[in-house]
Formats: sequence, structure tokens, C-alpha cells
Amino acid sequence: MAGNTFGKSFKLTTYGESHGAAIGGVIDGCPAGVAIDLSAVQRELDRRKPGQSKIVTQRKESDTVQFFSGIFEGKTTGTPIGFQIVNENQKSKDYSHIATTYRPSHADKTYTDKYGHRDYRGGGRSSARETACRVVAGAIAKQLFPQIKITAYTSSVGHLQLDKDYKDLDFSEIEKNDVRCPDPAFAKAMQEKILEIRKKGDTIGGTITCVLENVPAGLGEPVFDKLHADLAKAMLSINAVKGFEYGSGFEGARMTGSEHNDLYNQDGSTKTNRSGGIQGGISNGMDIYFNVAFKPVATLMQDQQTIDETGAEVTMKGKGRHDPCVLPRAVPIVESMAALVIADHLLRDQTTRLKTM
Amino acid sequence: MAGNTFGKSFKLTTYGESHGAAIGGVIDGCPAGVAIDLSAVQRELDRRKPGQSKIVTQRKESDTVQFFSGIFEGKTTGTPIGFQIVNENQKSKDYSHIATTYRPSHADKTYTDKYGHRDYRGGGRSSARETACRVVAGAIAKQLFPQIKITAYTSSVGHLQLDKDYKDLDFSEIEKNDVRCPDPAFAKAMQEKILEIRKKGDTIGGTITCVLENVPAGLGEPVFDKLHADLAKAMLSINAVKGFEYGSGFEGARMTGSEHNDLYNQDGSTKTNRSGGIQGGISNGMDIYFNVAFKPVATLMQDQQTIDETGAEVTMKGKGRHDPCVLPRAVPIVESMAALVIADHLLRDQTTRLKTM
Amino acid sequence: MAGNTFGKSFKLTTYGESHGAAIGGVIDGCPAGVAIDLSAVQRELDRRKPGQSKIVTQRKESDTVQFFSGIFEGKTTGTPIGFQIVNENQKSKDYSHIATTYRPSHADKTYTDKYGHRDYRGGGRSSARETACRVVAGAIAKQLFPQIKITAYTSSVGHLQLDKDYKDLDFSEIEKNDVRCPDPAFAKAMQEKILEIRKKGDTIGGTITCVLENVPAGLGEPVFDKLHADLAKAMLSINAVKGFEYGSGFEGARMTGSEHNDLYNQDGSTKTNRSGGIQGGISNGMDIYFNVAFKPVATLMQDQQTIDETGAEVTMKGKGRHDPCVLPRAVPIVESMAALVIADHLLRDQTTRLKTM
Amino acid sequence: MAGNTFGKSFKLTTYGESHGAAIGGVIDGCPAGVAIDLSAVQRELDRRKPGQSKIVTQRKESDTVQFFSGIFEGKTTGTPIGFQIVNENQKSKDYSHIATTYRPSHADKTYTDKYGHRDYRGGGRSSARETACRVVAGAIAKQLFPQIKITAYTSSVGHLQLDKDYKDLDFSEIEKNDVRCPDPAFAKAMQEKILEIRKKGDTIGGTITCVLENVPAGLGEPVFDKLHADLAKAMLSINAVKGFEYGSGFEGARMTGSEHNDLYNQDGSTKTNRSGGIQGGISNGMDIYFNVAFKPVATLMQDQQTIDETGAEVTMKGKGRHDPCVLPRAVPIVESMAALVIADHLLRDQTTRLKTM
Repeated sequence: MAGNTFGKSFKLTTYGESHGAAIGGVIDGCPAGVAIDLSAVQRELDRRKPGQSKIVTQRKESDTVQFFSGIFEGKTTGTPIGFQIVNENQKSKDYSHIATTYRPSHADKTYTDKYGHRDYRGGGRSSARETACRVVAGAIAKQLFPQIKITAYTSSVGHLQLDKDYKDLDFSEIEKNDVRCPDPAFAKAMQEKILEIRKKGDTIGGTITCVLENVPAGLGEPVFDKLHADLAKAMLSINAVKGFEYGSGFEGARMTGSEHNDLYNQDGSTKTNRSGGIQGGISNGMDIYFNVAFKPVATLMQDQQTIDETGAEVTMKGKGRHDPCVLPRAVPIVESMAALVIADHLLRDQTTRLKTM
Repeated sequence: MAGNTFGKSFKLTTYGESHGAAIGGVIDGCPAGVAIDLSAVQRELDRRKPGQSKIVTQRKESDTVQFFSGIFEGKTTGTPIGFQIVNENQKSKDYSHIATTYRPSHADKTYTDKYGHRDYRGGGRSSARETACRVVAGAIAKQLFPQIKITAYTSSVGHLQLDKDYKDLDFSEIEKNDVRCPDPAFAKAMQEKILEIRKKGDTIGGTITCVLENVPAGLGEPVFDKLHADLAKAMLSINAVKGFEYGSGFEGARMTGSEHNDLYNQDGSTKTNRSGGIQGGISNGMDIYFNVAFKPVATLMQDQQTIDETGAEVTMKGKGRHDPCVLPRAVPIVESMAALVIADHLLRDQTTRLKTM
Repeated sequence: MAGNTFGKSFKLTTYGESHGAAIGGVIDGCPAGVAIDLSAVQRELDRRKPGQSKIVTQRKESDTVQFFSGIFEGKTTGTPIGFQIVNENQKSKDYSHIATTYRPSHADKTYTDKYGHRDYRGGGRSSARETACRVVAGAIAKQLFPQIKITAYTSSVGHLQLDKDYKDLDFSEIEKNDVRCPDPAFAKAMQEKILEIRKKGDTIGGTITCVLENVPAGLGEPVFDKLHADLAKAMLSINAVKGFEYGSGFEGARMTGSEHNDLYNQDGSTKTNRSGGIQGGISNGMDIYFNVAFKPVATLMQDQQTIDETGAEVTMKGKGRHDPCVLPRAVPIVESMAALVIADHLLRDQTTRLKTM
Repeated sequence: MAGNTFGKSFKLTTYGESHGAAIGGVIDGCPAGVAIDLSAVQRELDRRKPGQSKIVTQRKESDTVQFFSGIFEGKTTGTPIGFQIVNENQKSKDYSHIATTYRPSHADKTYTDKYGHRDYRGGGRSSARETACRVVAGAIAKQLFPQIKITAYTSSVGHLQLDKDYKDLDFSEIEKNDVRCPDPAFAKAMQEKILEIRKKGDTIGGTITCVLENVPAGLGEPVFDKLHADLAKAMLSINAVKGFEYGSGFEGARMTGSEHNDLYNQDGSTKTNRSGGIQGGISNGMDIYFNVAFKPVATLMQDQQTIDETGAEVTMKGKGRHDPCVLPRAVPIVESMAALVIADHLLRDQTTRLKTM
């Protein structure tokens, strides 16, 4: 039983390989009557697009999305929304050198072990190219609940860690730099670090922080589909993600209960928010915030030792156009997956949606 | 659409409130013909049981599991396995003082906001008592694949962090101390810390590390149901969990690609294992390992300021029998959820299971 | 991937074998705050109970349901509802004669072929005893929408076919006779037929008609989960059912469009109702009605030739306590499955529920 | 929660409106390594295509399917298969006259009631045009199990009922006539009937019989996902279907047990097959056969009285190109849905697949 559908009520099913004819998907469960701004969808895609700045891959893809159904006269009809992005950069390349070689820390070998037969061009289905479909669906999801604000930003690159509370940052700065970090000085340092790493043909990891404001109280379906459990799954399903923490996170594990507990104000809000906006798996109306750890991109512009399908040792020549740091382009992906989780839980909930939408 | 089922092929559905008549569940999808050792199930439950040592809650529950179906003449029949644990300690208590009070950092308020009507006795459904059912199902799941070894242990309590690679630890030490830490000296320090915290009527958080050995290559269903994404969801669904990281985790986010990549040996294994046994969402045959962060228990044996349903400020009197630190009892829960994920993916996979079971 | 869960939003998962310790289930997805009359649940179970009249099996089972969770202070809490019926008549019987024999037109051989290992006592999981759990869940479901009226009745026994429109029948007569047929004279003829058949040690089939009144317009989820498609599946999942037709049914296949089309009144209702209350898979507010065909019970009180597991021919001695005709006890099962479908679709729908509940 | 996905392990998700840009879908769960003959897929589509004979609609659509993913170097890769059929005949038509009118016995009003906002062009999503996607997926499914033979044929048109056992028919005749009836003389009579009906601007219903040969024993997942229950749902999900019966069907409801029971041969096969190849919801290795009832097409080439959205009475002018009888084109749709059910159950089963594929 394959795993290419995300969500239970607001469901996204995707298809497509990196260098196949196209990637695309179907959104099923979007309520009828929602006005959809298609240019807003394209804008989100453009934030993820290759070639948008000098610190990301220079692969050429216009990443133009087409919609085929489910939207009529500017509004959703309640029927499935089919969409597609044609792969423009997929033609006539010679992949023979990698068809039988396993790139280190890539999925080449595990796909071969699992499926026996794989599309080896550009990583095939294992390429992060598929996340473009998530951004399309996330951009639709966001239009269901315009009052909820979802903001992600690059909070660390390598050892450069932005140790500021999200409340002390100016989110309007995020899109003003290529790194998507809301602290301009820090963004500059990160950018220089990435350029330095790129010059070496190396890559670097980092973290993204995401904040959800104005989420209504009541979202989340214990005991298994707790809101943060679904956020964790959503984030870990993104390529290169190695960790997730929300609210106090790993730091909270070092605290005592008397330090950690969030005391109530009389209006039901809490004086502190170590709970990260979720208690018992259900949103409480406070901000939801979490961190996502990304490992460095595995494809290096350096030679690496590896093996081929026969187990013979080969040297992998570094070449091509790859991201030295995945963070800047991952920011809209994190936001999109968060939007999918929120949309799914809004629709799953029996009562909260009614007060909200 | 509620969320009390875990898994898609090996499915666990649970029910039950902390102080209702019973908790229980149904396992659907367990293959036929598997020999089941029921005493092994009870042994796992005993590891989670209250009252097992002086550093856990002294609530009295024998936690004896009964099976009603799906097992016949010592083997599974392929039909659903119904089971139950009677709540023995649920009677005749006066809950009037908490029925309308919201305990800080508990789910009292969010359950009320979401459902309107809740069973307030002992936390009702939001109590970690429901995890006993997960341990039952996990203990059944483990018997499907005896060759896979799942080991969890307490790796930190508060600031006491065991900074050793799991490979340098002697797992046979884990069950020899109450904390379930494989380093005896460290276990002693942790135990003293917990007793000290308890004396203050406070509680403390910590982390559990879990290692899965002999998992066959090929498990995981990209792009959404990646093996580590389902592990993350499983862990975050456990009460009090705030974070998850696998392989290099958050530390990996600080590395460069040339530092992070796992190079291959000729037999297809890797020289290092920063990937944590999973590449592209699919197991590669190396050890899978991950860390789980638990916040401190919210119930304190100290007075706390809080509010009731009307928003009036009240003082919560600390009393009762609660865990000063959830880690020791959470070890079998983490193992059980890992076992459920592995069982589910073994059954979902089209080919790996055949080579394995 | 096993199949013991029915429904997507209002979900019933059941377990239990005919002669195991107990049968039971979990209802997940019932909204919070619904007042539940537990005696009404037991009354529905009593309509399905063995021994209730002389034309059904005389097996002794009190069929008393116990609830463990999800209902508190008389109302649902939104958490899963666990329930159970203890099997009282399951002990100390000698099944050695049937353990290795395949009863004709029973599931003995297919269960053995599929699972390898089966609980052969009284048919195990394949026994219609499991339908008692469906009746429990259906009785809960009905309490979600008291304004919807679901009525089933025996419309034929063998060749005795009640050729009357349901509108010309007095439903208050149904529970006044053992056959559950709303036409008293016809009921008497059916009853005599069943007694005559029983005297021969034989069994007989028949049909049940079911009518759903006051179903709101808007239920059903095309293109696959059309309301009537889910009703069909629900009915065919009941033991011994061989066919389903709704509205004009098989008779409609003999008609022309000009004969068949339902013309509109100005209020949006239709002058005729060959559509059976559903158009394009979505309820239109008119009555929903359908017929369900039951084959004769396979267990005869006559000797039959059959084979055992080795393929050797054996004579099956007719004995025991079985239903000569399943129809009277199947009436509440049909109603219950219809109630589960309606509850599921009410909760799945994005807007209709709001107008209704 | 919408309903545009069919299947649990072999899953088809479709999208598309009759007169939108395109219809299409995603098949998720197709095992890797299956050789796919794309021309065989197109051949199946051609059997469903409009304009193929004079007894079906003359709408012009080439119905050419394009595949985008999941098939590489002629074989499936285990990743999702995305496909699409462009709507060629959808442009520049004036729909203003039907945009606000409810056609009798169509889904116009129920879609409006449910969704508020609908694509009214050509019936939008409620059009049987979406079944083309089912035929694509069914044609892929069939290639998973070439040894299983699925054959459907027109068994009645109006009152012209072919009263022959399927075993006495020559299936090679089916594709030799436009009606797709295996009895040439009967086919001729049916064809004349359809032409006569068409001349009147009327339409006519009928039945399709479907036979599945060489299905392995062991398919089906009781208690809810019985093989025949899923076949029933599959068939009832097809536009215009009003009934389903398998094996002895409604006729079986008139029989006694001693007449109905299938006695065993020593090899485990049965002397008769009133069970229709399924016992207890699980295939037994005998032929599976069933009948499907189709009502007459609702669109007439005659004037009809109806209402518009305001409730005002209007006269619907009959015009356009529609099927006088849906049966000939529905034959491949019935086969395709049967193939989807079989593929899904083969993949869900824990052991049967292994013996089979």
C-alpha cells in the first residue's frame, strides 16, 4: 500500500518524477464555494522555483501550474482539483553514468532495493521536485482560511543559529533577502556562508522555524492524530528533514514542571506558551510554532567514492546544478505542509470549522 | 473524523478513559498463523505499569490484559484481536474539585473547547493511561518479526544527558535499574535527581533514545509515508512528547554535506550511519535510531494558580499520586509505537515482507 | 489489509468469534454531546436476539451489551465508544466433528484457504453472530438523527412476495408479528411457510425492503462514494445477502427514459420517485428505499454429503439450533447498516450536517 | 470528506468535469516491475469511446490517454501513475439555457443542493465522462493478473432478456456486434430495439452480466470488505446503475437451502455454483458472476417539463448527442471496475497474492 496521499479530509495525492513528462496531483475534499486566486498559487510556486537567486540551483524550470478541474467561475466546486506542472528541463540528457551508480546518502539504492525497477533520471520520484505539488496544494489550502497566518523562515544555516524569539523578529523582512531570514544582518552572514560553501562544491544544512497565528482552538484528533503529531509527520515527509520540535521542544526536556507549565490568564490564554499552542494534541488558540532540521544536500560538486549496482567502487564526479543549501527554497514547502495539516484538521473537526470558516 | 486508529495495514484502534470502566482496543490486520506468547504481552505491560518502582506513580493498577478474539489454539487467525484492561482504581472518588478547573499545561481546557462535554475524571481520554493499549498492541506486533530488535532507553533526565553513542552501551543493563538507562553510574545519578525533584513536589523532563536493529531494507512508502515520517508521528502521538530527531537529527543541520554523507562499503552497507538507517524514506538495512523529547509531567504536588470554566482564578492544590518523571514508564511505550510502525510498513510493503517473515 | 472497519467518519470496528469469549467493537467519530438512551440500544439488540420467537434459532444468548467509554453522564464525549457482548453459550462443546469438515455453502473452506488457521467453533468469525455489534452501533447512530426514520421489513419469504408499494403499508404492524412483515395476512402465510420448512429440516430465503424517510438532501460523495453505492456495500456485507436494488432497481432496467424519469414539482420534490431518493449519488430529500435479497441459511437439519480437509467424502449430520429463515432477525441488521451509512455521510458532508443536526 | 478515490491498496483517484479542460487520475499502489502495454489501455478506452457505432452518442472525442509518471522503460516503477485525457469537445458552447435548469432524473439539483456552486457544462462532474478514467485504471489493473479473465456483456435491453447461462454463450461473439451481446440473434433484436427507441427520442435501460474466471481462492476481507460487497459498491458507483446481484442473486431468495447449497466435489470445487464463486465474502476459486441493472439514460430527445433554480416551470427542449442506451459503452466500464476490485483485493490479501502474481 503506497503512500502518495496526504491528509484524510483535505487530501492531496501527487505523482511525477523529476525528469518525467510532468508532475501533478489531485486535491480532493476542498469545500465548494471558496474563491481561489490562481496568481497567489503561482506566487508561492515562484518562491520555491529553481534559479530564483544565486544561492539556489540554477536548473531552468518555469514551474507554471495548470488547473484542469474543480474550479469554475473563480470558485471551487467541491469536486477534485486536478493540476499539473510540466517538466521543461527533462530532455535528451545522458544518464547512463548514474543509472547504475548509487549516490551517497541519496535514495538510489533504497529505491532499487524496494522497487527493483526505478526511474533513475535526476533521482526520479525521490527528487525534491515533487514538493512543488505540495506548494500548489498548500497555496490552495491557505485560501480556505485567510485569517490564519502561516510564516516560516530560515533560523539557522550550519552553526549560524538565530537565537531570537520569533516574537522579536520582523516577518516583513523575510522575503527581502535570498536566505529568507527575518534578521537582515544575520541573513547576510548566512548568505555569505552559503556562497563560501558553494565555492568549495560543498553543501550545508540548517533549520527552519514556522509560526502559525490565529489558529482556532479545537483542532487536533487525539489520541493518534494529535495536531502536532500530524505536523511532525508532514515535516518529516519533506526531503532532507531529520528532526522536528514544537513549543519548548528538546529544550523543554531539560526543564522541571514548575518551570515549564503555562499558567492561565483569566481569558483562557496562557501567560507563557511553552506548550506551543497545543495541549493534549488540540490547539488552544495560542501561536503554534515549531522547528524543522534539514540535513545538508547530499549531492556535492566534489568527487566522492561510491559503489555501483554490482558493488564495484566508482568515483562520482561532482557536476550539474544543485542547491548548496536547501533552506531558502524549503521555506514555502514548510509553510505549505503546515497549511495542508491545518486544512485537514479544520475539515475533520466536527465543530471548530463552523465557528471559523 | 476522529483519530483513534493508528496504522494502515496493521491497525490499532483504542478506546477508554482513565477512570472509566475499562480501556481496550482492536488490532486489525495481524496476519494469521503467528504464534503468540501472551505472557510476553503481559511482561511488556508490567514494564509500563504504575507502582513498579519508587520513582513512578504509586497508583494501584494490576493492568492485566484480557484477549477476546483473533487468537485460537495459540496462534493468530487473521481476524481482529479484541483486548481489554479493566480499570481497577476508578471508583468512588470525588472529582468535583477538578471537574470545572483547568489544570495548567493539561488538556482539560482544550478538550472542553473541542468537545463541549468531557469525562473529567483523572484526565479522561487525555490521560496517558490509554498508552497501555499501545503497549499491548506493540507486544503483539513484536512477535511478528522476532528477528528485529527494538530497544529504547532513558538517555537524559533534565540536564543529565548521557552523551554516549548507543553502540558503546550495554543494553542488557537497561532493565537492571528503575530509570531504564543502560549506563549504571548515570542511571544512579538520574534516579537521585528524580527523587530530589519528587521531594519538591516537582517533575522533570528528559529524552528517550530508541534503536531498531535488523530492520530489513525496503520499508517505507514515499513520498508522504516515509518510514521516519511515520515514526515521528508515532512518537509525537505519545503524551508529553515535544520533539523527534533521527539519525544525525538537529546536529546534522549544523553539518556540511562532505561531513554528513554516508559513504558505501562494497556490500552496500555504509561506513557511517548519519542517515539513521533510512534514505529517501526507505530503510537501508542499517540500524535505525532516534531521540524523543518528553516535557516534564504537568501535574505538580505543589500549589499552582489556575482558572476554572468561568475564568475565575483558583488555586490548584497539589495532591494524589503522579509520576515525577515519565521517562522510565515511557520506554516500553516508545518501543511499542516503533513496533507498530514497523509492523505496519512490513505489511504495507509489496515485496520486503516476503523476504522477511 | 483486513476489513473489519465500516465507515470513514462514523467508524465501526468490530471483533469476535461466534464461540469465543466475547464479541465487541469500537465506534470512533461519534460527535460529542449526543444524549444516548442505552435501553434503546438494548431494545434493538433484542430484536436481533436468538430465541425471541419460534421461527428463529433457539440458541440461548441474553445478548446484553456493556459500554466502557465515550459516554459520560448520559452523553457522548466525542471519544471512542467501546462496547462488548459476552458470549454466554460458548462453552465446553465438542467441535471435533466439524473442525475438519467443510459445511456446504459455508465459509469453512474459504477461511481455511485464506487464513490457514481458523476458529472452527460455530463458524468462528464467519458466523452472523458478529452482526450483533452492527446493531449496537446502528442503534447509537440512529440517536444522532432522531428525525430520520429508518424502517425495514420482510417483503418476501421464498415465493411469497408482498407486491405492495411501501406507501400502502402500515409500518406499525411490523413488530406485531414474528416475521416482521407489515401486512398481517401475509405475515401469517410467511410464518406458516417458515414453520413448514423448518419441520422438513430445511431453510428458506427471502427479501427485506428498507425505507429511509426525512433524509436531508445533499448526502453522498460522488464519484465513488455515492450514497447508494455505500448502501449497497453495507447490505452486501451482511451474511447471506446476494443482491441489492434501490428505487426502480432491476425493474427500472426494463423501462424507457420517458417512463422512468421523475418530473419535478415546483417545490423541488418529484412527482414520482423511481430515483429512490438519490440522484447522481446524492440524496434529494425524497424517501430512499431499497430491497435486499437473502439466500436460504446454509445449515440444514438434514444430512448432507460434503468433504473434509483431506478431500474425503463425509456425511454431515443435521443437528443443533439454527434459523430456518434469517429474515426476521435480519430486519434490525438492515436498519442498522443503513443507519451507519447515513451517520457516516452526515458527518462526511461539509454542509448538510449543519442544517440537520 | 470527498469520495473520489476507489480502493485501499490499489487506489484510483480521479478528477475532471465533462466539459472542463481535461479528465484524469492517479493510480497509487501499482506494484513495481509490471510490464505495461499502453496500446492495450487505449484499446479498452476505444471500447468506451463515443461515436464508435450508430447506437451510441455521436459526440466527438478521440479519448487519447497520456501517461506522465510511474512507468519507465515499459514497466511500472511502484510510484504513482499519473494520466490524463484531454476534453476536445468542450469549447465555446452556449450553456446558458441549462445553467439554471434542473434536468429531470439528473444530478443537476442534487449537486446544486450539496455544493452550492457547480460546473453545469454537460453535467460537469456528474457526467459519465469520468468513467473513462476508470477504464484507464482498469486496463492497467488487468495487466497485473493476465491469467484472470474478466468478461462483461449486455444481457438485456428493456424487456429483451437473454435467458441463457453464461456457460452456454460464446464470449468471442461479444465484440462482433455493437450491442456487445454474445448471442448474435439476440444482439440483432437488441440493436433494432435501440434504434427504434432512438428514433422516438427516447432511451432504454438494461442489464450487464459479468463473469470473472480464474480468480484465485482467498480474495476478500470480511467482515465488511467482503469481495462481493466491494464488487457491489464498485458497480453501484457507475452512473445509472440501480441494482446488483451475484451468484443466485434475487432468484436465490426464492429458494430453499436444500435447493441452494453447493455440494463439494472431492477436489474442493463445487458441483453447482449458486454461491457465485464467493463464500463468506472470500473467493473460492469457482467463477464469479454477477448482474448489474442500468436505468434508461435520463436525457431525452423529447421535450420534458421541468423547473429551474427558482422553481419556475420550464420546458426542456430535447437536443444534442446522447446515448439512447448506455449498455454497449458500459460493458468495458463494468469490466474495469471489476478489475479494480480484484487488483485491490489481490494486493490487500496477505498470502493469496504470493501464490498468484
